[in-house]
Amino acid sequence: MEYNIEGRNAVIEAFRANKPIDRLYILDGCQDGPILTIKREARKSDCVIKYVDKERLDNLSETGHHQGVIARAAAYEYSDMEDIFDNAGKKGEDPFIILLDNIVDPHNLGAIIRTANLCGAHGVIIPKNRAVGLTATVARTSAGALNYTPVVKVTNLSKTIEELKKRGLWFVCADMSGELMYDLDLKGPIGLVIGSEGEGVGRLVKEKCDMVARIPMKGDIDSLNASVAAGILSYEIVRQRYNGKGSV
Amino acid sequence: MEYNIEGRNAVIEAFRANKPIDRLYILDGCQDGPILTIKREARKSDCVIKYVDKERLDNLSETGHHQGVIARAAAYEYSDMEDIFDNAGKKGEDPFIILLDNIVDPHNLGAIIRTANLCGAHGVIIPKNRAVGLTATVARTSAGALNYTPVVKVTNLSKTIEELKKRGLWFVCADMSGELMYDLDLKGPIGLVIGSEGEGVGRLVKEKCDMVARIPMKGDIDSLNASVAAGILSYEIVRQRYNGKGSV
Repeated sequence: MEYNIEGRNAVIEAFRANKPIDRLYILDGCQDGPILTIKREARKSDCVIKYVDKERLDNLSETGHHQGVIARAAAYEYSDMEDIFDNAGKKGEDPFIILLDNIVDPHNLGAIIRTANLCGAHGVIIPKNRAVGLTATVARTSAGALNYTPVVKVTNLSKTIEELKKRGLWFVCADMSGELMYDLDLKGPIGLVIGSEGEGVGRLVKEKCDMVARIPMKGDIDSLNASVAAGILSYEIVRQRYNGKGSV
Repeated sequence: MEYNIEGRNAVIEAFRANKPIDRLYILDGCQDGPILTIKREARKSDCVIKYVDKERLDNLSETGHHQGVIARAAAYEYSDMEDIFDNAGKKGEDPFIILLDNIVDPHNLGAIIRTANLCGAHGVIIPKNRAVGLTATVARTSAGALNYTPVVKVTNLSKTIEELKKRGLWFVCADMSGELMYDLDLKGPIGLVIGSEGEGVGRLVKEKCDMVARIPMKGDIDSLNASVAAGILSYEIVRQRYNGKGSV
């Protein structure tokens, strides 16, 4: 099975991460810097380049945002839990995992995988049911992070939390009812649980968490965008790790 | 002129903020909690309710995400700079303004206005040219924040920064080349400048800034999503203000 990688950054990153790309579709006549970079990378990897017109590219596009380039790659595979622990082990760091409780918006999932990669989280865990999986839109919105950051799919998030607790992780979820995030100790091996936009973190999952963190809010509306909230909490963890260990 | 407010949260918030809504289109047969809340609010405000089928609603929709409800309101008006200072003055706080250097994605603009509202920023400034304005998608993505947080449109962002410096503001922009954000003093009257996704903060605007802040990144890819970066930096300002003054 194959899938689309669409947009300039996503395609460049896919080549750089040595994803197996079979074919590359480029808008005929496109000659700007990023496209030339893509062509150079494509030649290195011996993939087939096809020059097509806009109509053909629009038809091939799954996201509607191809920016003149679509790569066809072997289907994205989910990682194993051990890939996350290997990732942390190789870096000699305490595991830092982001768990998503039923994020349904692919843009949010992509943005969170992107944040996970940049903040130094070692992997992302998503549930099998009801949530969005790894689509072309997720890959594009992740800006290439999907090539590096392991994403693990699990059947039951509560059960996974229990298993990971046995491996030494502490769990924190985001909720308005919690303690101010600055007052919690978020250092050490940690799992950060982010709830869905509409409903927040589910009750069963929340009960499994050791800590409930509140992002301070002083506005007139209810809640932050899920990917923004994930970013703010992830970076509170980064800040506390930095303060504790002196390396960022 | 009129504009669309689409989606449940956005419509509920628009009523609560007393936006002048002329007509309300609801998907015929919709009877769930949020829709009943919207009807109740609509009756209070004497607006006309029309029950329509899905095809009609889809046709009326500008965002493609109406969730069964579209309100038509008088066109959104940009605020004056004085609205931002009044907002800070009323709260007895040092002004905190978020300035956007050519954000082109309406989802990012909406998400940043949403974050601005919740983190306690007193207003958002956007440039007239090349950037996205206040569209229905922006209103929807802001989840109602557009009804509360003043958004000011300016002709020249560099000039505006100069003028605001005379009123006591310090300016910080986000850039990989800057100092680690934890090491900067971000308390006091402040303007936070966020650059566009592709290009970051423009050279002229960057030269006007007093500080350049770096979000620590340890990943494999280039940069965070603009609205996620805005959230992380805004909350670093919140944290420093909190530490300084003891109120969140």
